Amino acid sequence: MLGAARRTARTTALAPARRTLATEHSPPTRFASATVFPDEPSHPTVLSDSVPGSRSRQASQLIGEFQDPRAHVLVADYAKSKGNYLTDVDGNQHLDVFAQIASIAIGYNHPDLIELAKTDEFAVASMNRPALGSFPGADWAETIQKGLLTVAPKGVPHLFTQMDGSGANEGALKAAFMAYRARERKEAGVEDFTAEEMSSVMNNAKPGSPELVAMSFKSGFHGRLFGSLSLTRSKAIHKLDIPAFDWPAVSWPSIKYPLDEYASENAEAEARTIARVEETIVEWAKRGKKVAALIVEPVQAEGGDNHASPSFFKALRTLTREHGVFMIVDEVQTGVGATGSFWAHEKWQLDHPPDFVTFSKKMQAAGYYHAESTRPSLPYRNYNTWMGSPAIAMQAREIISFVKAHGLVQHTAVIGSELYSSLEALARRFPGMVTNLRGKDHGTFIAWDAESPAQRDQFVAAMRQQGVIMGGCGERAIRLRPMLIFGDKQMEVLLGKMEGVLTTLAGK
Amino acid sequence: MLGAARRTARTTALAPARRTLATEHSPPTRFASATVFPDEPSHPTVLSDSVPGSRSRQASQLIGEFQDPRAHVLVADYAKSKGNYLTDVDGNQHLDVFAQIASIAIGYNHPDLIELAKTDEFAVASMNRPALGSFPGADWAETIQKGLLTVAPKGVPHLFTQMDGSGANEGALKAAFMAYRARERKEAGVEDFTAEEMSSVMNNAKPGSPELVAMSFKSGFHGRLFGSLSLTRSKAIHKLDIPAFDWPAVSWPSIKYPLDEYASENAEAEARTIARVEETIVEWAKRGKKVAALIVEPVQAEGGDNHASPSFFKALRTLTREHGVFMIVDEVQTGVGATGSFWAHEKWQLDHPPDFVTFSKKMQAAGYYHAESTRPSLPYRNYNTWMGSPAIAMQAREIISFVKAHGLVQHTAVIGSELYSSLEALARRFPGMVTNLRGKDHGTFIAWDAESPAQRDQFVAAMRQQGVIMGGCGERAIRLRPMLIFGDKQMEVLLGKMEGVLTTLAGK
Repeated sequence: MLGAARRTARTTALAPARRTLATEHSPPTRFASATVFPDEPSHPTVLSDSVPGSRSRQASQLIGEFQDPRAHVLVADYAKSKGNYLTDVDGNQHLDVFAQIASIAIGYNHPDLIELAKTDEFAVASMNRPALGSFPGADWAETIQKGLLTVAPKGVPHLFTQMDGSGANEGALKAAFMAYRARERKEAGVEDFTAEEMSSVMNNAKPGSPELVAMSFKSGFHGRLFGSLSLTRSKAIHKLDIPAFDWPAVSWPSIKYPLDEYASENAEAEARTIARVEETIVEWAKRGKKVAALIVEPVQAEGGDNHASPSFFKALRTLTREHGVFMIVDEVQTGVGATGSFWAHEKWQLDHPPDFVTFSKKMQAAGYYHAESTRPSLPYRNYNTWMGSPAIAMQAREIISFVKAHGLVQHTAVIGSELYSSLEALARRFPGMVTNLRGKDHGTFIAWDAESPAQRDQFVAAMRQQGVIMGGCGERAIRLRPMLIFGDKQMEVLLGKMEGVLTTLAGK
Repeated sequence: MLGAARRTARTTALAPARRTLATEHSPPTRFASATVFPDEPSHPTVLSDSVPGSRSRQASQLIGEFQDPRAHVLVADYAKSKGNYLTDVDGNQHLDVFAQIASIAIGYNHPDLIELAKTDEFAVASMNRPALGSFPGADWAETIQKGLLTVAPKGVPHLFTQMDGSGANEGALKAAFMAYRARERKEAGVEDFTAEEMSSVMNNAKPGSPELVAMSFKSGFHGRLFGSLSLTRSKAIHKLDIPAFDWPAVSWPSIKYPLDEYASENAEAEARTIARVEETIVEWAKRGKKVAALIVEPVQAEGGDNHASPSFFKALRTLTREHGVFMIVDEVQTGVGATGSFWAHEKWQLDHPPDFVTFSKKMQAAGYYHAESTRPSLPYRNYNTWMGSPAIAMQAREIISFVKAHGLVQHTAVIGSELYSSLEALARRFPGMVTNLRGKDHGTFIAWDAESPAQRDQFVAAMRQQGVIMGGCGERAIRLRPMLIFGDKQMEVLLGKMEGVLTTLAGK
């Protein structure tokens, strides 16, 4: 693959140490995006002097007249974008391994999705958006049964749809608080809300507004609304000046990479964290603030692609069950195949499923899966006008269908494994510049650290000038979030461009 | 109008007292939905034994296998619905004056929207959803400039798009908190965040997570997420068991209807409320909890369609300015023409615009308008992956364009005025059953009280059996939320059916 004719002249071949492994084991599937996107570029093209080019900058300025443009990377021409390649208004064609912050699953302008868009079904759903909790459409059950329900994680076959990842996490959290109080009532032999609860809640006061708390991990990211932002502990800039709930957070275990090399140190770090989680649950309960829910990402993404072992998550599940704490697994970024399994938490092989699994991003639809037991006691308790969108649920159905039909989860596992091996080789060649490589056996959900935040930014900027869009995370990490259609050709381009940029930066 | 041929046999003509007024003033426009929906039914048809019919009940049961069906009214057949009429899976055709909880602006399957749905533009936007804050599309500025910006309320020409009404309110609230702290810093001569702020915020503690509070009104509704739900004070069932911020709320003035009959009593009630708002701002500041923002609906909708006079809102604006409190006008339900002006707050003729105006529902797109001065100090502070949806912004553009081209705001003002007069006549004929009629000069945004919650429910249920979908609100109110294409024909049907049902219920 790396000797392919399309290789650009500026880069030289890598000799990845374990490249042959994947073929030796005859991968279950391997997907070539050209079969679906015949016009997809084979390599990036940068026409403008720099990225963003002058037209992008002009277009940004125009947007700036009504909306903050300061986080713009470029202004895109979505109509011209194809598969793994994002075209911008300067005509540059970028290999996109960031994919709208991990939100594009099967490529720009995927023909199946464009076909769906032109159907009567999609038009009717888009233009007659229902109040789904009260006036669902005739096709709602089928859309869900053929789509989102086919990938319901084990043990959580019920579904509440929301608008986005923040809303998904907050919806699950609301359900967790309600279920926690329902169990307390049951244990106390109380049938209904008390008069005191009914009146105090209207003043946001206890007991109607309970002093229950939700727990998260430091450096975790769970969204930007007031509840989800209280759980989020990724960066100060996300949180400054916004009032937050007094909720506990525990440090993520101090993991060293590669995980298998530091297995025993990591196990100890994880054990310390588990102990700290338990202490926190006990301490806060003593202060009258019972932990009703714990939320965790399978890999802390925004916070720096921080991993932990399946044992850690198993211990968390055991602990939360012992203390009656509802466990919410936030798969907003890890879900939908990117880690080489449809849900990242499948890898943990839990004996007892999580209570809630939340999703958004690559699914386009958002919401949470749960067990029937956490359906609120009365209607209208977890309810809102739209409760998601039938049109977007159709989109999720098509995405899931394509992912399954083409074995894209297994494909991503195989490609990810090869990519990881090649990155290991790069890390050996450029020590310091590519460190703490992580994401082994996690599909293409791979990251590494640069030497410093400045060097990370410099690397990402240099790659952008080469027509490769990458994203940072945490303090000094670079994360890969390619689509599920990222394959051999794109891997070759990515590695070639990386090698070129690292060589240049190393020479400076 | 009321003598029209299509009048059903079961009802007799009303003689509304002030019917002639509108024509005397030669209404600027009057829209007939048949011009756009030639196949729209002329009257409701109920084929099933009851509503919901057996097919609706079966379809609900199917949905119930994965999602809470207990708030279902019926299961709809959106493909067959037209204009003001919603068809259900039993083939019943309902005149819909609830419109998906006030969320359908220009009718089911509006030809312009269906046409938009089939365009390449809409397909590309739907299927390539960007991370809008970083990779906006080439057409984003134009979509907004030709759509949402053309109806930007006076004084708030900037826009932040979100996913739904709850998110819109929370986004505005975040911007208000940031602007409040920015002003405090400026006044204190502080340039940047302090080290203490940067570290404390990661623990959700002050000073980084400030003790600032947001204020709302009792019986107000502002959404269902953790921040917006803390503002919401409509019903206990919305809030029970969910932790809430310790934020203040003041009672809505005890208004008597009709407003003009009780002008002096109402003015006194409003003055008392204004005084209470000021006391609360002062009292809470003394406790270290400064009120940074106040949120208010022009008409408290979910909470019971509670009105107040323009003077009340003017006084609120004066007061909030005096105390440096940011004023958020929540137009999620009142916006987009239903009250006979595009924004309900236009009627107040404020000398100084509100700081934030939020919208969603009939706009389909959601977000908030604001002044440039409340753009956060740094990028990524108010930011999220999707930040709304370009496809839905196109939908908003088409809705706005149709509303303008057909003068639907003025149309709704005229129709609403006639409807109000006819309802006054009904109220006189059925005293007790139709009381506290309200919404004069508020387009079709009209409501009244039944004698009791049970009688309200009985009335709504009886109307449903007649093929008219209406909504309740507050304790015992019925609210009208027809679309902007609700015209003479539909008014005739509505009044006829109401007269029939009231006559039957009165005879019991």
